[in-house]
Amino acid sequence: MSRKPTLYLAGPAVFHPAAKALFQYLKEICAENGLEGVSPLDGEGKWQNLPQEQQAAAIRQANIDLIRACDAVIACISPFRGPGADAGTAWEMGFAEALGKKVFSWCEETRPYLERVEHQRDDDGRCFCQQHGMIVEDFGLVDNLMLTAGRFPPLPEFDQVIKQAAAELKG
Amino acid sequence: MSRKPTLYLAGPAVFHPAAKALFQYLKEICAENGLEGVSPLDGEGKWQNLPQEQQAAAIRQANIDLIRACDAVIACISPFRGPGADAGTAWEMGFAEALGKKVFSWCEETRPYLERVEHQRDDDGRCFCQQHGMIVEDFGLVDNLMLTAGRFPPLPEFDQVIKQAAAELKG
Repeated sequence: MSRKPTLYLAGPAVFHPAAKALFQYLKEICAENGLEGVSPLDGEGKWQNLPQEQQAAAIRQANIDLIRACDAVIACISPFRGPGADAGTAWEMGFAEALGKKVFSWCEETRPYLERVEHQRDDDGRCFCQQHGMIVEDFGLVDNLMLTAGRFPPLPEFDQVIKQAAAELKG
Repeated sequence: MSRKPTLYLAGPAVFHPAAKALFQYLKEICAENGLEGVSPLDGEGKWQNLPQEQQAAAIRQANIDLIRACDAVIACISPFRGPGADAGTAWEMGFAEALGKKVFSWCEETRPYLERVEHQRDDDGRCFCQQHGMIVEDFGLVDNLMLTAGRFPPLPEFDQVIKQAAAELKG
């Protein structure tokens, strides 16, 4: 019997105080769709007693090892402490894509990124944010194009993206 | 004569209204250190007349092609529209690292990430942000550990990281 495709569950849920329960819930939905969800916390090792700096490096390496071992990544890019995705999640998406893995994502905030950032439009149609006068991406996407303009654009809900992943990975 | 090592210049400077001049300045500093800086804008193609969605995909692919072609990546992870790095930059760092490229970074904001996010500490010593009650990373790092706990931790200034990159790539 062939094993189920494995999915690394990327996202800021690792920072939730009830992260383990949350990942357990996501894993159950994965299982219902014939997939095996892998949580970043599954890599938890014996780093608890390491000095702070070595802990960070050990967690990072554990996450990298899990991504390498999985068939694909499914990432939550809902806004986190700002208008866009968690940077650690974005890093993991890029890492996985370079390894040739399929990267799926969901974003609970469906408004275009442009609408989430206070901006003004100039006479040439360019949009500038009011904080730094930097240009705000205006492609109708929910986040930076590196995260969202790939082969699998983000879907609004986890339930939807799991079905997409199941179809792609088992198809 | 061997060619200079090439460095992809990742960072939110692409969103600056004077991005070209800014990258030209960074490229000059690269050249002074025996390196060739490559700007994401160097990949600018004929996508200007494409529909919005195809433009985004074309820019993304151009950036990916440039990263693949470069020897290393040097990323600006200074806070961008929030307490941490630009997500697109983080994505590119992960992508490059998975390809086995060296990834250097600088962060002009040298306070630990924890200090940039309003938080409260509970009796167990865990720090929670006040916006969502999510845990705030407390490793003394300037950003998420996927970006900062690797082989080359961020340095505070571009001038410093260019010297680090030059020593690593030419040494």
